[in-house]
Amino acid sequence: MEGTQMHTHIVHVHPEPHSYNGALTRAAKTSLEHLGGTVTTSDLYGSGFDPVERARHYADRVQPDRFAPLAEQRHAWKTQTMPKDLVTEIGDLERADLVILQFPLWWHGPPAILKGWMDRVFVSGGIYTSRMRYGTGYFKGKRAILSVTTGAPRAAFGPGSRGGDFETMLWPVQYSLHYVGFSVLPPFISYGVQGHGYSYEEQSSLEARLRENLAVWASQLSKLEDVDPLRFPDWPDWNEDGSAIR
Amino acid sequence: MEGTQMHTHIVHVHPEPHSYNGALTRAAKTSLEHLGGTVTTSDLYGSGFDPVERARHYADRVQPDRFAPLAEQRHAWKTQTMPKDLVTEIGDLERADLVILQFPLWWHGPPAILKGWMDRVFVSGGIYTSRMRYGTGYFKGKRAILSVTTGAPRAAFGPGSRGGDFETMLWPVQYSLHYVGFSVLPPFISYGVQGHGYSYEEQSSLEARLRENLAVWASQLSKLEDVDPLRFPDWPDWNEDGSAIR
Repeated sequence: MEGTQMHTHIVHVHPEPHSYNGALTRAAKTSLEHLGGTVTTSDLYGSGFDPVERARHYADRVQPDRFAPLAEQRHAWKTQTMPKDLVTEIGDLERADLVILQFPLWWHGPPAILKGWMDRVFVSGGIYTSRMRYGTGYFKGKRAILSVTTGAPRAAFGPGSRGGDFETMLWPVQYSLHYVGFSVLPPFISYGVQGHGYSYEEQSSLEARLRENLAVWASQLSKLEDVDPLRFPDWPDWNEDGSAIR
Repeated sequence: MEGTQMHTHIVHVHPEPHSYNGALTRAAKTSLEHLGGTVTTSDLYGSGFDPVERARHYADRVQPDRFAPLAEQRHAWKTQTMPKDLVTEIGDLERADLVILQFPLWWHGPPAILKGWMDRVFVSGGIYTSRMRYGTGYFKGKRAILSVTTGAPRAAFGPGSRGGDFETMLWPVQYSLHYVGFSVLPPFISYGVQGHGYSYEEQSSLEARLRENLAVWASQLSKLEDVDPLRFPDWPDWNEDGSAIR
């Protein structure tokens, strides 16, 4: 699935196109196309994606008097009355061999627009059912990777450190990708992404470091075949009631 | 701060007023008022809160050609040109002794509308600065507690279990509350909250269990003085660069 065979879809999340997140997405696209692959992008801010799961997304309600999100999701999938923006987003994922989620860390997690992309796109009864999950998930065979920016320096992260531990902070997103069947590769973290309040000398060294980081990301994307996915619990690890087998 | 002195603010998050989340919010309000306290509610779905941090919230831009969220937040706070919905939300928190976040667990975290409430309400330069954080945070002296519903049964949760570990899943929200100075009390989790696909007998026992759970929540709110807050790392635990002191 490398080179010419590989199709990558980038879910791009930042309100400012000229941000460093924008540069990371462009670097990924250039690198992957250079390797002979194809790349599409879903720019959630650009398309005005609505991250709020709510009644008005459903034209044909199974329960018009009471809004139960999962019931409406299942009904919309079954009757092919899915919200149009979700049909687009799901099609993008279906065509991809690799999915990159590019976003800044805001309040120890993804921006709301990306959280709500999961709330809405991972449709009950369509993208998952009680048996079609985890190792038997809808997107089985596809890989996903998070590329995350943060303003604080590397030293501030880790268990007990001020900024928190990335393994914990990214767990909800990564486990959700695992839930719908993706093999999740270790994340790429860009530290110290900020441009304000620095002297000229500091600013220059910051820019040099961030430019170097773009090259690291591009290079890393050319070697994904060598990378083992993260290990998450799966069906063989659980009892029937979902508890962990000790 | 108990009884007549205590003012509680509930941030209520569910798209359906007749949901079990709605019942939990009403049970909390009744219980706290019965104890002599006062209660206000911010219904994020009801008020149409926009969880997406974006340029259009800022009428008076410090950088009109490039949208840097934190720079605009600091500028808006300093020039008192804050978005009106945030002035309301922040005022509600300032007046509260106790803040309850009531929400369903969606994709191993809060719904997007609550994630974005944090993205927008916790304003850089106003609600926090590099020194006004954690133990020296803006909301120091106030308490916060999460009340969370989930469809899966209790057995499915815990380290390595199918549904995930609540300590990990709630860490991003709870640590963010700690970041802005709240003492965070252990969460109240309502398991097995669902009403579809059951036989009459199962449905009856489900309803009895959920009714009983409302009483447990009401009772728990009357005994918060006895509860120790969760312990999170704080200034004395870190080196100057934010790394944990070993």
